[in-house]
Formats: sequence, C-alpha cells, structure tokens
Amino acid sequence: MKNAKIRPKRGSRFAYDGLDRVIHERARLSVLTSLISHTKGLPFGELKQLCDLTDGNLNRHLMVLEDAKMVAAIKGVEHGRPQTVCRITPLGRKRYIEYLAVLEQVVLDASSAIKADPPPRGGHNPANA
Amino acid sequence: MKNAKIRPKRGSRFAYDGLDRVIHERARLSVLTSLISHTKGLPFGELKQLCDLTDGNLNRHLMVLEDAKMVAAIKGVEHGRPQTVCRITPLGRKRYIEYLAVLEQVVLDASSAIKADPPPRGGHNPANA
Repeated sequence: MKNAKIRPKRGSRFAYDGLDRVIHERARLSVLTSLISHTKGLPFGELKQLCDLTDGNLNRHLMVLEDAKMVAAIKGVEHGRPQTVCRITPLGRKRYIEYLAVLEQVVLDASSAIKADPPPRGGHNPANA
Repeated sequence: MKNAKIRPKRGSRFAYDGLDRVIHERARLSVLTSLISHTKGLPFGELKQLCDLTDGNLNRHLMVLEDAKMVAAIKGVEHGRPQTVCRITPLGRKRYIEYLAVLEQVVLDASSAIKADPPPRGGHNPANA
C-alpha cells in the first residue's frame, strides 16, 4: 500500500502522522517550498531573502535538510566569488510531495469544519461561547 | 488592512510569517483541528485518542494553548467521575482561521510548482539530477 504511512490509525482521525517534522518546521517548510518552486536551485543569498532568514538560521536548517539528504548545497564560484547553490534532491521532492498530501488533508478537514459552523454575524457564536 | 500581517515582505515570497508557531507545532495543529471540528468541545480522553497523544503530551500542549487563550479546559463531573472538556475559544478560532489562510497559500504554491515540473516518467528528472 503506497500511502499506508499517511493513513491515520483507527480512532486517530486528527493525528496527521505524515506531517514529517523535518519538513513541517516553519523555516524548513519555507526553504523546501522555495526550492521545489526553483528546481534548478537557488543561490544561498537569494534563498535567504525569499525565506526571510538570517545567514545563521538558514545554515542551521540547511544542515538538517542536508543530513536528511533532502537538499544538496553545491559550493562553486560565480563572478570570481564563492557561491553556494542549494537544490532539492529527488528524495527531498518525494518526501515533500508525501508531506503535502497530509497538509492538504489538514486544510480540507479544517475548511469543512469552518464551513459547517460559520463565524457569527453579530460577533457572538453560542457554539463557542 | 485586515490581512496585512499575513502578506509577505517584499522579496520574502516564501517566508510564510503567518504560520503562527503556537498553532503550527504538529501536536497542537492536531488538537486545534480536532477542536475546530467539534465546536461543542471534546472530553480529554477522546481528544487524546483523536490526536494519538499521550496524557503527558496532550497536557503539555493544552497548557500552551490555554496560556495563549486559544483553548479552554473545563473541569466537571460525568457519571460521578471527574472529566475535563476541551473547547476552542473564539480567539482560538480566529487565530486558527488566519493560520489556515497561510497554510492554504503554502499548499497552493507547492501544488503549482509540482504541476509545473511533474515527476519524471522513468524515475529520472534532469532538473533534479
């Protein structure tokens, strides 16, 4: 069963086990979403700006993602200056897509719940009082 | 501007500042999604099962959510035994809905990127090699 690991246990309807902690952390989710949107890779400085991270923070999260073999950081030279280009790996892409399926389920569950019990008109909802 | 705080800074397209850390943590996201789907509240034991959490873990995360005034835990008696019923507060609901809008944006960004660069047929994608 291909999707066995993202199916909830009986009774654990809202456990969302597939929300892989390596990906779910906010900064790493930013990094991976940037990289999946730029499959040819992004220079460190550009990635830092897109995710609004400091050098230290981005380095720290890239180490976690490199250890998990989800991102590759390739050191090179551009216009005579050292440059690191970050790229999502095929494994990173695969795990990100699996994670995304669970995230979509969260959005679906939450949206259905909110639609079923819309916000109050007069600022007061007896169900939430 | 109502949604000013969830709009990304110029250049920080993938920062997702609105992914409120109080909500984004996986166990708390489970708890809040369970509670927004059960606006009348859930007994502690049922919530624990739905989220697949231990007593200790659920207690710890409920404390964070109670401190943030997003969840109320009401102690009472049911069939002669003490019972705690957990319920999302109107503030919790408001913050969760704001969070959800950003989560939807992540899903949208990621889905568009994946569709624009579909997985390889033969297990090899030159763009990701």
